[in-house]
Amino acid sequence: MFLRNCWYVAAWDHELIDGRLIARTLLGDNLLLFRGDSGKATILDDRCPHRGALLSNGRLEGDAVRCMYHGLKFDGTGRCVQIPGQDLIPPKMRVRSFPVVERDHLVWFWPGDPAKADPSQIVDFPYLSDPGWKGIPAYLHYDANYMLIVDNLSDLAHLAFVHKNTLGGSEEYAFVTKPVGVERLERGFRLERWHMNIDAPPFHRKVIADKAAKLDRRNRVNMHIPGIFYMETLFAPAGAGAEKGLVAGAREYRNCQFMTPETERTTHFFWSYLNNFEGADSTISHSLLNSLIEGFMEDKAIIEQQQKTLDADPHFQMLAIMADAPLAHFRRVMEKLIAAEQAAAPATGTHA
Amino acid sequence: MFLRNCWYVAAWDHELIDGRLIARTLLGDNLLLFRGDSGKATILDDRCPHRGALLSNGRLEGDAVRCMYHGLKFDGTGRCVQIPGQDLIPPKMRVRSFPVVERDHLVWFWPGDPAKADPSQIVDFPYLSDPGWKGIPAYLHYDANYMLIVDNLSDLAHLAFVHKNTLGGSEEYAFVTKPVGVERLERGFRLERWHMNIDAPPFHRKVIADKAAKLDRRNRVNMHIPGIFYMETLFAPAGAGAEKGLVAGAREYRNCQFMTPETERTTHFFWSYLNNFEGADSTISHSLLNSLIEGFMEDKAIIEQQQKTLDADPHFQMLAIMADAPLAHFRRVMEKLIAAEQAAAPATGTHA
Amino acid sequence: MFLRNCWYVAAWDHELIDGRLIARTLLGDNLLLFRGDSGKATILDDRCPHRGALLSNGRLEGDAVRCMYHGLKFDGTGRCVQIPGQDLIPPKMRVRSFPVVERDHLVWFWPGDPAKADPSQIVDFPYLSDPGWKGIPAYLHYDANYMLIVDNLSDLAHLAFVHKNTLGGSEEYAFVTKPVGVERLERGFRLERWHMNIDAPPFHRKVIADKAAKLDRRNRVNMHIPGIFYMETLFAPAGAGAEKGLVAGAREYRNCQFMTPETERTTHFFWSYLNNFEGADSTISHSLLNSLIEGFMEDKAIIEQQQKTLDADPHFQMLAIMADAPLAHFRRVMEKLIAAEQAAAPATGTHA
Repeated sequence: MFLRNCWYVAAWDHELIDGRLIARTLLGDNLLLFRGDSGKATILDDRCPHRGALLSNGRLEGDAVRCMYHGLKFDGTGRCVQIPGQDLIPPKMRVRSFPVVERDHLVWFWPGDPAKADPSQIVDFPYLSDPGWKGIPAYLHYDANYMLIVDNLSDLAHLAFVHKNTLGGSEEYAFVTKPVGVERLERGFRLERWHMNIDAPPFHRKVIADKAAKLDRRNRVNMHIPGIFYMETLFAPAGAGAEKGLVAGAREYRNCQFMTPETERTTHFFWSYLNNFEGADSTISHSLLNSLIEGFMEDKAIIEQQQKTLDADPHFQMLAIMADAPLAHFRRVMEKLIAAEQAAAPATGTHA
Repeated sequence: MFLRNCWYVAAWDHELIDGRLIARTLLGDNLLLFRGDSGKATILDDRCPHRGALLSNGRLEGDAVRCMYHGLKFDGTGRCVQIPGQDLIPPKMRVRSFPVVERDHLVWFWPGDPAKADPSQIVDFPYLSDPGWKGIPAYLHYDANYMLIVDNLSDLAHLAFVHKNTLGGSEEYAFVTKPVGVERLERGFRLERWHMNIDAPPFHRKVIADKAAKLDRRNRVNMHIPGIFYMETLFAPAGAGAEKGLVAGAREYRNCQFMTPETERTTHFFWSYLNNFEGADSTISHSLLNSLIEGFMEDKAIIEQQQKTLDADPHFQMLAIMADAPLAHFRRVMEKLIAAEQAAAPATGTHA
Repeated sequence: MFLRNCWYVAAWDHELIDGRLIARTLLGDNLLLFRGDSGKATILDDRCPHRGALLSNGRLEGDAVRCMYHGLKFDGTGRCVQIPGQDLIPPKMRVRSFPVVERDHLVWFWPGDPAKADPSQIVDFPYLSDPGWKGIPAYLHYDANYMLIVDNLSDLAHLAFVHKNTLGGSEEYAFVTKPVGVERLERGFRLERWHMNIDAPPFHRKVIADKAAKLDRRNRVNMHIPGIFYMETLFAPAGAGAEKGLVAGAREYRNCQFMTPETERTTHFFWSYLNNFEGADSTISHSLLNSLIEGFMEDKAIIEQQQKTLDADPHFQMLAIMADAPLAHFRRVMEKLIAAEQAAAPATGTHA
């Protein structure tokens, strides 16, 4: 059960090139993504209503797509515009199309009621198109429900144990730091953790010159429905007063992550890890890309195992600890929104 | 749900050689096929009634088979004739046997009530044993319900898009030809399509001398329950009057295909593509075998994907176009026969 | 549905070395086995109650284990003893622990109500630690319910057909031998079969000097709930009166096998095949290990296929023959014990 009246990331914009017909499952629906010759990004049901063949195995013709089983042709609104050997086209011969907005190099789509699709609800990510920030748009696939990834990102204490040798740097992180300023929002939360006078964690040490310097580390997390995460990370010289706003000499990162359900048990994970201190080449971006993948693989092993464990015993109830307050809030927000949507409308968005 | 009181192809006769015990699933039943020493083809349940071991892992002894778990022996009627270490054999210790008829190099079997098995209902295929026609008996396995293959064969318009570069030759086929003479039969249908003044399609061009000659093409389809297909194909010199019966200089093919359900989601596909203009060697037969496999692989990719699409959404209802009239008729015929059989008898044929 | 108030073999004792955290499913429960620094063998639920991560992916700390997702630590009784960043530990934050007893190199565990775990119910296997008997502790995994393996071992007639060329030696075994002295016990059965004046079966011939000598063979089987098997095998010179107790010059084997359900459809099979005539090296033990594996593989193919056959048709009812009397008795014993346990308590053993 997903929240459908909501914007989700469907793709990076660079995926829609060269007239490719991309088959992608989003929120349980098998969809077709393409950019027509006019440049417009289009998302349709990936299933010919005639005999069920995949339109993604079809042929792009302008802004339309032709099914290559019996030749039916559909325009970008999903309407059938040609049936070979037949003059009359029944109005029911059509596929669903979905509202699409491209912004900040992301292709957003709205899987719910098209009449409610309001682009002003899209969360902006100006860093992704700001030349002052460099990063590499990337993707991972998870064999787990997207909320398990949201949970993982909501509790930074896991850095201490899961990522000790990659993104975390020390088990101390779980014992001596606590979230400060957890802020419960109507559609998400914000939280902040400081770790003072530490060695640089491995991923950061790889891209800085003075590898022995002591640092103060701040992680500021933003989580927004349905699974939109960004984290502002700062490493400042230890004791220089970063916690009071004195951030001269600091290095900063912007961690942008977009969880889009593929199915109830699998997730598309779009992400980019940006820095503001890269030179003319991309050495730092490439190092960070590798470090982040290394860290995500540590998460992925645990999260995908969690999914198996939950599947194996549907009666298992997870027990919260105090650090789970933000994720518990976020789950309540999602449950309320989904319940309200279900009360107001049928479970599956349909649009003639 | 299958029609059980009906003849199906279980095997090519050349498969039953050398005392092989063949395990084959037919209409959802796990069966054992073999030819005993007397030459008689036999089909039994492939499951020892004692502990459920496979008889196909047993040993042929004359016209009987011995289970190699505890040594029980069953004759060709399915009766247990020996239990090692035990004198009395309970009458319940037996397996089902099925009526079998060999004809035209095909092994036909009747999965329903044996009392109703009437060999005169078997469709004859004299071409398969006529020395004037040459072809190679062949087999493909489909991961799809057999009716999806029947559908595919019922609508020749797909030749235009699926087989443009193999069996079809031109997308024009879907636009300028229409079925003529669709004939609805009590247990199937006949239809005919003409395509005038065309280039030879690739599969035919490979086996003729004058590759540039314009041709008139006729496809005449016969479909019979439960999934018995044959098509008479003719290529005549363009404009010579083939449509009026003037077929001097024509090349002809006979396309014989037998769809037998393995399970609800998989199919045995027996076929032979015959020609009447082959010389002493088998060059043309081999070329046609390869061309047909090439074409069937194009179908198989679409049909197996269709099965996945239908499995993924049981609520999906296919929408008919005008060219679907024959397949819609055939599906109605099958549904009526199955409904009548279900009303009259239990769902699974049992015979003591 | 398993009998839970009963001792089962969980492991050979040599498996619990080097601080390994072993993930093993037993009776459908995903469990963690380890030997702590104090030497004590421990079995816990392999699932952190916080977010469901596997404790077997955690870290051994003394006699405790730490989850490496968020750092919660559990002692050998299953109690949580540390939550990083949190002082108060809720009493509900714990995992199940299970009674464990080590004896005869076997690690026995009790999956039911711990209050009922009485070590005096464990069946002794003194051969396993007697220097007069040599063998190699071994393991096989079966994709089949454990009772199908029990069935197999309860009917020695299968030696004739399944193991003719390995453990059996002759199909005659099924025809001329019958169980003598079948003894129905409250928690199992005993039976005995004699085969007089025979050639040595292949596995035995490999390890004796006079390969042509005629022998009398006795197999004496003991089966005990839930799936504890041992067989005393004796080969004596033919006609020397072994059946009257004159066993001078006999060679003897002890066949110890322990079937522990992994799931309803898979089984852990611990075994050791011991002999009392080995010299200083292990040549005979290694030969017997190989011969027994060869024989078990013959069983495994049949038994795993049986499982598939039963899964394919839940309506299939096996039909007994006379040789099935012991296995029928054993199945009734198990059914009665399980029914009594279900009547007295909930289906799953829980212990706070």
